Amino acid sequence: MKTMSQTDPYFSRVSGAWGYGDRADPVLWGDGRGLLPAEHLQRFERDGFLFVDKLFSDDDVRAWRDEADRLANGGIDRAREEVVIEPNNDTVRSVFRVHRLSPVFKRLVKDHRLAGVARQILGSDVSVHQSRINYKRGFEGREFFWHSDFETWHMEDGMPRMRAVSAAIWLSDNNEFNGSLMVIPRSHELYIRCVGDTPENHYKVSLRQQSYGTPSYDALTMLVERGGIVAPKGPAGSVVFFDCNLMHGSAGNLSPYPRDNIFFVYNSVDNALVDPFAGIAPRPAFLGERDGTPVDLL
Amino acid sequence: MKTMSQTDPYFSRVSGAWGYGDRADPVLWGDGRGLLPAEHLQRFERDGFLFVDKLFSDDDVRAWRDEADRLANGGIDRAREEVVIEPNNDTVRSVFRVHRLSPVFKRLVKDHRLAGVARQILGSDVSVHQSRINYKRGFEGREFFWHSDFETWHMEDGMPRMRAVSAAIWLSDNNEFNGSLMVIPRSHELYIRCVGDTPENHYKVSLRQQSYGTPSYDALTMLVERGGIVAPKGPAGSVVFFDCNLMHGSAGNLSPYPRDNIFFVYNSVDNALVDPFAGIAPRPAFLGERDGTPVDLL
Repeated sequence: MKTMSQTDPYFSRVSGAWGYGDRADPVLWGDGRGLLPAEHLQRFERDGFLFVDKLFSDDDVRAWRDEADRLANGGIDRAREEVVIEPNNDTVRSVFRVHRLSPVFKRLVKDHRLAGVARQILGSDVSVHQSRINYKRGFEGREFFWHSDFETWHMEDGMPRMRAVSAAIWLSDNNEFNGSLMVIPRSHELYIRCVGDTPENHYKVSLRQQSYGTPSYDALTMLVERGGIVAPKGPAGSVVFFDCNLMHGSAGNLSPYPRDNIFFVYNSVDNALVDPFAGIAPRPAFLGERDGTPVDLL
Repeated sequence: MKTMSQTDPYFSRVSGAWGYGDRADPVLWGDGRGLLPAEHLQRFERDGFLFVDKLFSDDDVRAWRDEADRLANGGIDRAREEVVIEPNNDTVRSVFRVHRLSPVFKRLVKDHRLAGVARQILGSDVSVHQSRINYKRGFEGREFFWHSDFETWHMEDGMPRMRAVSAAIWLSDNNEFNGSLMVIPRSHELYIRCVGDTPENHYKVSLRQQSYGTPSYDALTMLVERGGIVAPKGPAGSVVFFDCNLMHGSAGNLSPYPRDNIFFVYNSVDNALVDPFAGIAPRPAFLGERDGTPVDLL
């Protein structure tokens, strides 16, 4: 068990009971100028997320679906570490680092409607911390339990501050039955300290099923009582921008139809990774890119 | 593998590919007289289910919740066969035969708003085929995959015809996030033959996680393309009546709050159980009551 560092506002993986602290960083870092209107920016700041209905066209979505299918169906070797298989069946759950594995997604990660919004929110140039496609196959795709990404990125990757934002780009219509992204509004305002240690190479298990760095039921109940639960619904081509500390998860997909999302995580170039706060070796680059190259220079 | 009996319209557990047949029985058996208005009866016949908003009062619900909690929390011995534990944790998933284990639920199973509606739909006196409480605890309650009850009751209990109806009585508000009952409208019109054999004592596993008698993905996709998916939402005290052959399931509960339902299954006294069509020994009485006593005489 790591000793608590009272100088790190985001210490976690504690022994004993869970706890929480106030967020020590702003949500909006810039001067507000950019693609998003002020009202949308304020909503993002207040709720911790912003749903943009049908940001991309059907033609765009079709091309990305084809590319996502190609990657999952042999386009890259299933034995590679970037490919994660479901815990209970042999379908592909995630492919990581798609912005480097695929020219199509390398182009998309630079799109100003995504990277530009990230720059607007984070008030600086941005690098890609992580990219992935989550394939939630019809009948097969399993749940992702509630978690704050930042807790993991801080403890296991060494991301110092809350100055990163995710964009979830929907390749399928998201509805009530196919395991939509669920978020707890305003949960980004509090930092939940998780209980427990962090074994080395924990990520090999946690990608399939999370076991450390998960918030306690009491913490989640407290957050839901403050903010409720929201699951944005809408057509393929929609995007959810969400703060790195927003508590989110998703149910299994019990519909016959796939629910595929692309996730891009943008980190401020002024928030370069340091040694992981859990005192372990950093996770591999496909989970936490360490070079910090601005996205436009990729 | 059992030989197909072409004289049984509802043969199942076949080798090779899945298949389906038309329903060989009416949905409504009586002259229509009773508590439900004609319009509601017609909706039940067409869709295979009927949602009745807040049939019972908050006071009733509170008393039943207390009784349900008592049963789950030591009121009956956890080692009894009527008590089923979740596959991945040690919380109570179901308690069966509550109409015999609890005087409160024995009274409720006779209530004319439930048993009377069953008599109206089935056109005869009715017995209790099965009763249970499904506890879907906050964060812990796991999914129930899609299934038709009748397929199991026919193959493993020896229920000859489709002349039974279930009532799901909600002890909690059912919403989008706590694993509500989902149904495929009009799926009761077709009988899906499942692939595979039926081991003896299969029920000991299937109560926790279904493995035989599950419809194929192709069958489910066909049904959803015909009828879609519906998940009725509403307050505690609401009831869903659904035909014994309606395809239904439910997702896991990712909310902090419990989603507890009582299920009563009413069978026509003219549809007495015979030997199981899978050629196995009948399941124990807590899963399929064999004595056929009219509910009012219990």
